[in-house]
Amino acid sequence: MVGGVRARDLAQDLPTVSPDDSALTATRLIAARRLPGIAVVDAGGRPVAVLPASQVLRSVVPGYVQEDPALARVMDEAGAERLCVDNLAGERVGDLLPSSRHRVELAAVDGDATVLECAAVMARLRSPLLVVVDDGRVRGLLTAAHLLEVLLPAEDVDTVDQAASAK
Amino acid sequence: MVGGVRARDLAQDLPTVSPDDSALTATRLIAARRLPGIAVVDAGGRPVAVLPASQVLRSVVPGYVQEDPALARVMDEAGAERLCVDNLAGERVGDLLPSSRHRVELAAVDGDATVLECAAVMARLRSPLLVVVDDGRVRGLLTAAHLLEVLLPAEDVDTVDQAASAK
Repeated sequence: MVGGVRARDLAQDLPTVSPDDSALTATRLIAARRLPGIAVVDAGGRPVAVLPASQVLRSVVPGYVQEDPALARVMDEAGAERLCVDNLAGERVGDLLPSSRHRVELAAVDGDATVLECAAVMARLRSPLLVVVDDGRVRGLLTAAHLLEVLLPAEDVDTVDQAASAK
Repeated sequence: MVGGVRARDLAQDLPTVSPDDSALTATRLIAARRLPGIAVVDAGGRPVAVLPASQVLRSVVPGYVQEDPALARVMDEAGAERLCVDNLAGERVGDLLPSSRHRVELAAVDGDATVLECAAVMARLRSPLLVVVDDGRVRGLLTAAHLLEVLLPAEDVDTVDQAASAK
C-alpha cells in the first residue's frame, strides 16, 4: 500500500517519563494535563512500558482504602491529597510498573503502521494506549477513542436515539 | 464531613446508550466525540454497564485481524472502515457487553461520594471510567485522569526532568 494515514501521523506528542523519575512527579504530570496515560522510556528513548492513568490511580490510593471505600467517605480533599502524596513518597515510576514476571507485552507499533494495524494491536493486547515508535524511539501515543475516530469517520450521530428507537 | 467536592460536582455529562441501540451507532458516537467510553443505561435510566473505548475497539476489529496484525498492513482506511462497519452490522450495544457470567462489578458511586471514595472504587475495580448515579439514574462519568487531577492539584510540573535528574 502506498500513501494512506500512518501511525506516526496520528500519534499525539505526549510527555514521557523514565523508570527513575519520581512517581509523584509523574502522577502530577498526568493529573495536571489530564493525560490518558504516559509512556515510560529508557535513557535511549526506547519504550519500556505504557502506564494508563487508571493503573496510576491504583498505585496512588492506598490498598486499605481500596478495600474499604467507606473509610474514604470521612476524608476531605486536603486529607485525600496528603494520603496519596504520602503513599507515593519515595516511589519511582519503575515501582508503579508490574514486576517483570507479570509484565504484559508492550502495546507498540512502528510509525509506518496502518490505522487498522494500530487498532488490531490495541484490541489484541486490551490496551487503552498504544506507543508509536520510530527508529527505536517513542514518537507519541494513540488512544482507543482517537483510533475509533479515524476508523469510523463522522456521520450524523445526532440521530442515535431516533435510529435506535425506530428499530 | 460537611461540604467538600462530591462525585456529582465532577461528573461529566456524557451521552448514554441503551443495550438495544445499534452497536455501530454507539461506536460512531464514541468516535465522533472521542469519548473515553460510554455508559449503558436501561429504559429507566439505571446504569447497566460502562463500555470503555478500548473495549469497543475489541469488538470493532475482527478477531482474525487481531490475531494477525500483518493482514491489516495491506488495507487502506476505506477498506478498514468497511471491515469494521461490516463486523458491527446487526449488532446491538448489549452484544458488546461481557456475558452476564463474565460481567464484573459495575464501577459506580453515589453522587454524594467524596473524591477519595471515587478513586478507591475505580482503583479496586481497575476501571478507567466511573459512573456517578443520583437517585438511581446516571448523572455522568468520571475518568481516572480527571480524578487524579482533583486528588493532586496542580504544582509546577515543568520541573519533572530536573527534579528526577537531580536525585
